Amino acid sequence: MSDVLIIGTVAFDTIETPFGKVEKALGGSATFASYAASFFSSPAVISVVGNDFPKDYVELLKKKDIDLEGLQVSGKTFHWDGSYEYDMNEAKTNKTELNSLENFKVKVPEKYKNIRNVFLANIDPEMQLETLKQVNRPDFVVLDTMNLWIKIKKKALIEVIKKTNVLLLNDGEARQLFDTVSLVKAANRALELGPKAVIIKKGEHGALLFTKNKHFSAPSYPLENIKDPTGCGDSFGGAFIGYLAKTKDLDEKNIRRAIIHGSVMASYNAEDFSLDRLKKLAMSDIENRYKEFQDIREF
Amino acid sequence: MSDVLIIGTVAFDTIETPFGKVEKALGGSATFASYAASFFSSPAVISVVGNDFPKDYVELLKKKDIDLEGLQVSGKTFHWDGSYEYDMNEAKTNKTELNSLENFKVKVPEKYKNIRNVFLANIDPEMQLETLKQVNRPDFVVLDTMNLWIKIKKKALIEVIKKTNVLLLNDGEARQLFDTVSLVKAANRALELGPKAVIIKKGEHGALLFTKNKHFSAPSYPLENIKDPTGCGDSFGGAFIGYLAKTKDLDEKNIRRAIIHGSVMASYNAEDFSLDRLKKLAMSDIENRYKEFQDIREF
Repeated sequence: MSDVLIIGTVAFDTIETPFGKVEKALGGSATFASYAASFFSSPAVISVVGNDFPKDYVELLKKKDIDLEGLQVSGKTFHWDGSYEYDMNEAKTNKTELNSLENFKVKVPEKYKNIRNVFLANIDPEMQLETLKQVNRPDFVVLDTMNLWIKIKKKALIEVIKKTNVLLLNDGEARQLFDTVSLVKAANRALELGPKAVIIKKGEHGALLFTKNKHFSAPSYPLENIKDPTGCGDSFGGAFIGYLAKTKDLDEKNIRRAIIHGSVMASYNAEDFSLDRLKKLAMSDIENRYKEFQDIREF
Repeated sequence: MSDVLIIGTVAFDTIETPFGKVEKALGGSATFASYAASFFSSPAVISVVGNDFPKDYVELLKKKDIDLEGLQVSGKTFHWDGSYEYDMNEAKTNKTELNSLENFKVKVPEKYKNIRNVFLANIDPEMQLETLKQVNRPDFVVLDTMNLWIKIKKKALIEVIKKTNVLLLNDGEARQLFDTVSLVKAANRALELGPKAVIIKKGEHGALLFTKNKHFSAPSYPLENIKDPTGCGDSFGGAFIGYLAKTKDLDEKNIRRAIIHGSVMASYNAEDFSLDRLKKLAMSDIENRYKEFQDIREF
């Protein structure tokens, strides 16, 4: 029985960074998120791919016991083509072919409807809303998004935020959404909308957690070689909710530990393209890097 | 007897930020650094001001027992005119009048020559080198600089770095000096030049410490209102060396604590223009914020 429901994209990623290039590699927010979550819990995915989606990719996810009953197949697979300059904090989109994503109608399989934890990974906020409509009221909802939705679907996005327990944003998105340079102010405005916690992901600068009266600053991991940051935010979110689903403890202190698990996963994810690093990852790697995170912030 | 020698600028700062404007306020790297250091130790300053330098400003420093025997008086005071946009990470220089700084000849007073800790605050690296030439070999040298010197006096700067125990840089400077986007690589190259430790200041993102085998990530303080970031790096450096001079412990663990004291001072400094916040600061304020830094980092 799955304990984390994840809606998001499953995609072909064509990516060029200063350290290499991949074509039609396995990508998408639900891919990275479910793979990362699978180290801690049993994810179930809602998404769509095309008839051109390789069996190998499906197998890779199934090997981690990710439930794909909610993965529809229709037309051609969503394809994102992007690149990064030396400063890898922001991706440049060269081309986006929505394909089957364009007419994707969310349909939550019956057996998913009672899953207690829901991760609304990055996808059209109307699809995120539709997912929440179809499930039986979950205990815990985590929401991720991107600058595109803030720009073109802000109203729907605000609606989803109101139904969310934890909001994930990167720093640029937080500033854009709440029209302020101050991340503290942005976080406070987000909290006013309903979420109990706001997590601001800052890439190489770590992550910040804001709750009503507390603040936590998670360090980043000092990676010497970053090959491809694609999917770091998604694997952060997946590991975050996976860890919370496993530990069943939503206390602020445990949310801090979940953030560090998210950071560990994101740091590994950046070390190679697609799932290439995560698919070689052992639980002991996660534990060792978690210990390193403890050490690098101790004073 | 002073225990921290500080060379740097003492200046008039004319500054505009989105939150206000000051004209010819007390500024300069040696000013912020010595004032911050004075909370922990007894600083002695080497710098130059003009005949137009107000007695009030001198009194402000003397009240903190800062030794000003090395403060020469000649011509007109160095004047920096700068402004910040909403993103206050970088200052825009509108005008720089070097005035008496232009022909400043470093002369270390006899009674300063045996001071064991030296902070080469931001000033022309040739003046920093000259200071080191005139003092008797100190135990501990900390160096700060800025992008201008990396651009126009890189050779002299590299010479000073070789004579330094701890190098302070902000992230942009680190990337510029070692021509890499990776802060880890930049830090490693800096360590190869001789310093035992490199501290990369990242403003609102905290600070990183790199030593041969260890890494420390200091959180930033989540300030809701930043009025003026001018002097934050200098007060960071001053509090850092002041704390180490007081505690007389150069172990990596104590360097971490010194970095947090630097961060505490920098966070207060940003809350108002010039020394306006620091001059109201009590030791208990420093201790309370230090505890907050511990809390925002715990997991």
